[in-house]
Amino acid sequence: MADGRPVEGVYLSGALDLEALFGRYFAAHSDRVRLRRPEEIERPEEVCFALTWLPTADAFRPYPNLKLAASIAAGVDSIVHCPSLPADAIVTRVRDENQGDLMAGFAAWQVVWHHRNMRFHINHQMRGEWARRNVDDYIPPRDCTVGLLGYGFMGKAIARVVTAMGFPVVAAVRTAPPEQANGVTFEAGEDAILKTAARSRILINVLPLTHATRGILNALLFSAMPKGAALVQLGRGEHLVDEDLNRALDSGQLAGASLDVFSREPLPPDHPWWRDPRILVTPHQASDCSPVLVAAQVCRAALDVVAGRRPETAVHRANGY
Amino acid sequence: MADGRPVEGVYLSGALDLEALFGRYFAAHSDRVRLRRPEEIERPEEVCFALTWLPTADAFRPYPNLKLAASIAAGVDSIVHCPSLPADAIVTRVRDENQGDLMAGFAAWQVVWHHRNMRFHINHQMRGEWARRNVDDYIPPRDCTVGLLGYGFMGKAIARVVTAMGFPVVAAVRTAPPEQANGVTFEAGEDAILKTAARSRILINVLPLTHATRGILNALLFSAMPKGAALVQLGRGEHLVDEDLNRALDSGQLAGASLDVFSREPLPPDHPWWRDPRILVTPHQASDCSPVLVAAQVCRAALDVVAGRRPETAVHRANGY
Ligand SMILES: NC(=O)c1ccc[n+]([C@@H]2O[C@H](COP(=O)([O-])OP(=O)(O)OC[C@H]3O[C@@H](n4cnc5c(N)ncnc54)[C@H](OP(=O)(O)O)[C@@H]3O)[C@@H](O)[C@H]2O)c1
Ligand SMILES: NC(=O)c1ccc[n+]([C@@H]2O[C@H](COP(=O)([O-])OP(=O)(O)OC[C@H]3O[C@@H](n4cnc5c(N)ncnc54)[C@H](OP(=O)(O)O)[C@@H]3O)[C@@H](O)[C@H]2O)c1
Repeated sequence: MADGRPVEGVYLSGALDLEALFGRYFAAHSDRVRLRRPEEIERPEEVCFALTWLPTADAFRPYPNLKLAASIAAGVDSIVHCPSLPADAIVTRVRDENQGDLMAGFAAWQVVWHHRNMRFHINHQMRGEWARRNVDDYIPPRDCTVGLLGYGFMGKAIARVVTAMGFPVVAAVRTAPPEQANGVTFEAGEDAILKTAARSRILINVLPLTHATRGILNALLFSAMPKGAALVQLGRGEHLVDEDLNRALDSGQLAGASLDVFSREPLPPDHPWWRDPRILVTPHQASDCSPVLVAAQVCRAALDVVAGRRPETAVHRANGY
Repeated sequence: MADGRPVEGVYLSGALDLEALFGRYFAAHSDRVRLRRPEEIERPEEVCFALTWLPTADAFRPYPNLKLAASIAAGVDSIVHCPSLPADAIVTRVRDENQGDLMAGFAAWQVVWHHRNMRFHINHQMRGEWARRNVDDYIPPRDCTVGLLGYGFMGKAIARVVTAMGFPVVAAVRTAPPEQANGVTFEAGEDAILKTAARSRILINVLPLTHATRGILNALLFSAMPKGAALVQLGRGEHLVDEDLNRALDSGQLAGASLDVFSREPLPPDHPWWRDPRILVTPHQASDCSPVLVAAQVCRAALDVVAGRRPETAVHRANGY
């Protein structure tokens, strides 16, 4: 494709109106990159990239020359597993420092929510009741290990804040870094995830969704955790075996959970979790990418692929993230 | 006083049952240091120290040889201003790393509470409603300056966590440190507090209560802040001019406030702040000292003063903190 010719893209999502969310940011960012809805595309063979999120199974089929499927976010699980994705298309994610900060602040907030039982205070405010908790009611931060499943872009940002609050952090990794890094210790190898859970009074999940991680938050993992521990689930809904969480809460094995992601989103209005005081529900809101940055990174990736370069934000399709 | 003789102390508080709170920790910590209630003391002239919190005006009068008034916490304002405190008595505070961690986590939680409007999510969970906020609804952390009034033991611990979350931090100091320290910038000199407020979208107060800081959170300061900013008040109730806060909230100059300390504690049950959705009330709970550490530091200070040494935890009475 000659320099200066428009780079044609298409919005592909079965869940979101991507044009409404991102259109103006792409228009402001680049004259050359052009994004349209599928029904506006006249010559599908000229489409070389898609901006996508939860694509339908055959979403990619009309575009034989598609070189790039660009996620609007950090996660790419719905894209790499889409059956119509061309086998040689590059998949990119967004890598947004600001998003890392947002995730880190959100996760730290959830840690304090469980550590200090902040719901206790919110409930007492509603009743107009001054109720102090005894300092003995909570474990000193330095004795309250926080575990991290997923020590990538998000996990590292979270670890930075949680260690700054004085909590020891343990992270599950596949290959242990050579030494202890920034106050974080590691569990590596086959049982890394279970060993991490066994040490964690508060366990944060920011794994990507892959064949290996689906259903990883299950009864076995919960039973390995210290009794009365808490789960902070910020990865993907399919990481969690919902029934196993309910049972762990009912038995008292877990004291509480914060859930930001669900196997069905939006969480249906009649779902019991909405009314469960042990669970804090948030609407997949831990961290959004800035749309300005999404536009910038995706335009750059689109120009990269037409020029034959591999974009910096490309993921490893075989790994699934 | 010869080595080995008991070191006699007295509990002095008009507000708390200090023996119930601390008695067992002192007993476990030291055989030599003996603490009793005023009514149990037979020879007041042998009492050389007091463990104290909100002492009554004449609390110290019966003890002519008192050398040490030891606070159970970081604050000493109620002690240094007690009219019966002997002019030459040393006043100590507690300096507890764990308390710094607790304060830092609590303050960081309040920052995220306002930055992300977490109450929005709690309210929607109660209604069983999936309501995502747009990423445009909040300022990126790196564009949302957090101000600190009081950059001492607590302020520095808070700055460590808030900078790790990606927020710029500005602190009001009397003498500026030579350079920017750990991502914190400073306002110094006469107008330091107002200049800090003017830059802060979220302003955290952890000043000690002194003649210079009483009523510092007032209409002038609120009007200097960016419109829609938030106040996190963790110092002392008397720092705040209550009516000025109400007016700043009503006019929309401030969007919200977190209040942990009050000029009257407990906050009376009929106080309107309990039912104000713009205000988060917590019961002076930001950070408690560990009672084990209080016992250890106060016993050490008591042994120091009988040996003629100045305890490491002594405050400057003239400064008032
Ligand atoms: N709730 C939200 O709002 C939200 C927002 C953003 C992201 N997320 C979720 O967070 C996930 C992670 O995002 P990210 O940006 O941190 O991704 P990332 O940079 O790709 O990091 C993923 C990390 O997970 C590790 N990992 C993958 N499979 C593993 C396994 N089986 N065992 C142990 N570790 C494994 C990887 O280890 P290696 O280094 O060994 O490959 C990598 O360090 C996303 O996929 C998404 O699901 C949620
Ligand atoms: N809500 C709670 O649960 C809770 C718990 C603990 C403490 N607190 C409050 O937090 C306060 C601070 O505790 P801390 O341990 O951080 O005390 P600290 O180590 O003595 O620090 C106080 C800081 O305030 C600064 N300062 C004093 N007067 C000032 C003024 N007029 N203008 C600017 N800066 C001024 C001091 O500056 P210099 O360095 O120049 O002297 C010092 O850096 C306590 O006094 C207490 O009121 C509340």
